[in-house]
Amino acid sequence: MPKIGTQTWSFSNVFLQSTGTAVGPDEANGPLSSTFDKVYDELHCGEENWELAERKLMEDAIDFCLKKGAMQPYGVDFFLAGDLLNQIVTANYVARGNKIPFLGLFGACSTSMESVALGASLIEGGFADNILAAVSSHNATAERQFRYPTEYGGQKPGTATYTVTGAGAALLGRQSSGIQITASTIGKVFDWGIKDPFDMGSAMAPAAADTISAHFKDTNSSPDDFDLIVTGDLSAVGSPIVKDMLLEKGYDVRDVHNDCGLMIFNSDQPVFSGGSGCACSAVVTYGHLMEELIKGNLNKIFVVATGALLSPVMIQQKESIPTIAHGVVFESTGGKM
Amino acid sequence: MPKIGTQTWSFSNVFLQSTGTAVGPDEANGPLSSTFDKVYDELHCGEENWELAERKLMEDAIDFCLKKGAMQPYGVDFFLAGDLLNQIVTANYVARGNKIPFLGLFGACSTSMESVALGASLIEGGFADNILAAVSSHNATAERQFRYPTEYGGQKPGTATYTVTGAGAALLGRQSSGIQITASTIGKVFDWGIKDPFDMGSAMAPAAADTISAHFKDTNSSPDDFDLIVTGDLSAVGSPIVKDMLLEKGYDVRDVHNDCGLMIFNSDQPVFSGGSGCACSAVVTYGHLMEELIKGNLNKIFVVATGALLSPVMIQQKESIPTIAHGVVFESTGGKM
Repeated sequence: MPKIGTQTWSFSNVFLQSTGTAVGPDEANGPLSSTFDKVYDELHCGEENWELAERKLMEDAIDFCLKKGAMQPYGVDFFLAGDLLNQIVTANYVARGNKIPFLGLFGACSTSMESVALGASLIEGGFADNILAAVSSHNATAERQFRYPTEYGGQKPGTATYTVTGAGAALLGRQSSGIQITASTIGKVFDWGIKDPFDMGSAMAPAAADTISAHFKDTNSSPDDFDLIVTGDLSAVGSPIVKDMLLEKGYDVRDVHNDCGLMIFNSDQPVFSGGSGCACSAVVTYGHLMEELIKGNLNKIFVVATGALLSPVMIQQKESIPTIAHGVVFESTGGKM
Repeated sequence: MPKIGTQTWSFSNVFLQSTGTAVGPDEANGPLSSTFDKVYDELHCGEENWELAERKLMEDAIDFCLKKGAMQPYGVDFFLAGDLLNQIVTANYVARGNKIPFLGLFGACSTSMESVALGASLIEGGFADNILAAVSSHNATAERQFRYPTEYGGQKPGTATYTVTGAGAALLGRQSSGIQITASTIGKVFDWGIKDPFDMGSAMAPAAADTISAHFKDTNSSPDDFDLIVTGDLSAVGSPIVKDMLLEKGYDVRDVHNDCGLMIFNSDQPVFSGGSGCACSAVVTYGHLMEELIKGNLNKIFVVATGALLSPVMIQQKESIPTIAHGVVFESTGGKM
């Protein structure tokens, strides 16, 4: 049975066929610049408004992914996608264009690994030969929707994160490749009472810690079994918390933990405590981390995408912020992608 | 292989274990009143605001579903849910409460059958022994978010639909029962250029027609194979369109088609062209239709939940409305639920 323990799935027949990434100017100025397929030097990405810019980024990421995988859109069985915008409009309108049977997902910034986990289960279960998974986020669309329009120029505290402008796409299939997707762990919703939309790292750390420890328990594994356990967007605020929480649970991840939100920007960039957004975990994973697996610098990694299920309406109603984290294990097979 | 044709999945081991429904006062005054588990006589459902009322409805539907299925929340493997609100906050906060590993979905009003289709695939594939699927909608939360607050008292054209206040939950599992889930067809996104948020029926009909004809092709079946082909919320405007479109494709569904949005209200209720919303297809299917399958009045039905991927921001940007439809086949086994 592919279900292990309480919330983990194992996969034997799912491989990464190709990936694609597209990012905005801030990400292009970061340390991972060379690992992205497409880079824009301004936030509009040549489009008339922010929403169209985000759509362009997802379309670009998919174009690169499918071209690298030598796949036409009509050859893709199902498209699993989501984003941060209300009604996941980026994914919906991209699905309108590519005409691939579509399943819309929303897990805030955890949607990246939610789409890979569900996609892998559909392939393993025989419901698809291949799956296209994609997510996006855009600094200007997300800030306006969740907090304040960036044009307003509001001040932010140091605990705030900086929404990554970008999109990532992954083509999953059965054909053996350099990277195998071997497991995923589906998260539960956690809420530690945080109501500050400028501190997502603290809010999400408990969800990340729970998913990571659930994975260790379900698979009878430990931090030593991984070269890297990377969270999506806990940033400089949430990363120490997840490490402390896991230490209290008996797991020392300090030597193997990193966070995509800390990896994507240089420390001197004006990004507060680090990057966030659906695209943060997606572009770091589908770009840099897949390269490292192919090069053999990493052999087995656990990507834990963290999602703050933040809603402005709920914040106005004095609710706190529920959070979730979904994790996927990627392993090098020693081959090429 | 459980994949048939281009976009259909077949299931051999998935049964409906139990269902639960909760509705508001308008639905309670409709012809299906006796088929609902819980009925509220006012829209607040005893809560302080509309969002809490909608949350209460989903919690009620799940409570009834799990009690009828003799299942505790900790015995449920995964919770697949969504709703119409931004960030699917109803589902997120319900998942916070029940602590079941959670996968958030968004397909507008098609989310009801999206959750059943994905849930059935996870059971069939061995990734879960059981799945709790739930959706909700609320007239006051949906109207405010997508169009105008109901308190504003704006006039509506006759093509408008009336968002159903309610929630439906279904527990899927492997244990043989009176109702088997035997197939699902995943839809593509269609957009025929409609920009009027007061005419969702016309917008969604092409998506419904495509999913229904795709199912016939994939499974080599015809309208004669079904006792009922029921769309989610095409209403009095969209229903004639889907019948005409299918006739043009060579399929005459006129004798077997009905629409949940037409079934849930009496013709003299002030609901414009009929009901809509995630809960429309869910409460009609999980209440009335499941009763008819158990009684033997129906043997095989195809529930095609229709979703208008409407976004107020996109409408303001002069975009048209993309739509989608996902279908699930329910069959009577002759036994009890």
